[in-house]
Amino acid sequence: MSRKREAVRDLILSTSADLFRDRGYRATTLDDVAARLGMSKASLYTYFGGKEEILAEISRQTIETFTRGLAEISRARLSPEEKLREVVLRHVRFVVSHRSFLTVFFSEEASLPARFARALARQKDRYDRDLETIVQQGIRSGAFRPVPARLVVYGLLGMVNWLYKWYNPRGPLGPDDIAHVFLSFVEDGIRAPRRGGGPALARRLARLRRELDATARALRNA
Amino acid sequence: MSRKREAVRDLILSTSADLFRDRGYRATTLDDVAARLGMSKASLYTYFGGKEEILAEISRQTIETFTRGLAEISRARLSPEEKLREVVLRHVRFVVSHRSFLTVFFSEEASLPARFARALARQKDRYDRDLETIVQQGIRSGAFRPVPARLVVYGLLGMVNWLYKWYNPRGPLGPDDIAHVFLSFVEDGIRAPRRGGGPALARRLARLRRELDATARALRNA
Repeated sequence: MSRKREAVRDLILSTSADLFRDRGYRATTLDDVAARLGMSKASLYTYFGGKEEILAEISRQTIETFTRGLAEISRARLSPEEKLREVVLRHVRFVVSHRSFLTVFFSEEASLPARFARALARQKDRYDRDLETIVQQGIRSGAFRPVPARLVVYGLLGMVNWLYKWYNPRGPLGPDDIAHVFLSFVEDGIRAPRRGGGPALARRLARLRRELDATARALRNA
Repeated sequence: MSRKREAVRDLILSTSADLFRDRGYRATTLDDVAARLGMSKASLYTYFGGKEEILAEISRQTIETFTRGLAEISRARLSPEEKLREVVLRHVRFVVSHRSFLTVFFSEEASLPARFARALARQKDRYDRDLETIVQQGIRSGAFRPVPARLVVYGLLGMVNWLYKWYNPRGPLGPDDIAHVFLSFVEDGIRAPRRGGGPALARRLARLRRELDATARALRNA
């Protein structure tokens, strides 16, 4: 495919995703998409066979991005903890940068052709299982406490997927800030507690907490 | 309203929600609803003015249930920690028992009449703020570490709302099991650390520093 053709294709997909999100998939016509793009419907048809094909392609690209990212991370020479951090970071970045895609992906499953919907469900299952494997590796390595790994996966995906509902691109927090805060919730929830100690460390901790309190207070009053 | 009339109304709502979930709201007709119920369409019209009214009523009952539950918990003589536990427990129970309602509630916002959609958005905002207040009370009381309360709310709601996507009523886990596991992730993530030792303390220190950085960044961007 020529680069120009590919760019137009991408533009059709992102424009359609925006319209599907705002008006709903069924309420949006190909005329709406063509009008928004300043393109004729005939020309639109040289890229996609119809609205259903556009919807399927949005879903396909979304699951492919997630699946490819997770496969890369799974293969990487990283500890399970590092892998989980990387998954969350990439996931949050993608949800934030493709909110329309995600809204369509999560809301229009019932509108997909049945065969494609089944294939998609299988890919999602595989994704969940591969992520579960990372959590289980972390449990075996002793990095995480022995938690129900599948529920960690669902809880974590719930936290990061939900971003498509509330993320405000004009708000103060970028995707990396959010990923780090979410990771801090989850890691402290699933890391194996160990023992040890030191009054010096405890003093540093208390000091940092005071600083954090002061900064958080300042933020609230800002 | 007579009790029989109320029971039929509830049945119409739950049947419609099931159909909307399986086929999508726009693809479902009132004829489909009437046929599933073994009821005439004329008789259906004596309960609801149309499909849009059914959709609005499903959304209204859903947000009302959440809002009423949260208000009761907020007023109760409970510690912030206990309040948060109770919110999560009730939320999970409701999502599990009303999955069709929740699917419609979260997927069909674009199909709602504009005025109703705006009122609903305001109610959701209020819910988020009231839940944030509980987290802030927990921070002030020292039960939770000084986390960004709004992100706790979004993370927590993401975990529990996401259930509507994956919960399997034939699976081994009931709502209370799931709520307790999720709470164990979240509480260990947001509870103030008490005693501790070497590697655990060092990790907390690193985590606090990351949070401090993220908060300072947010402050600069605010």
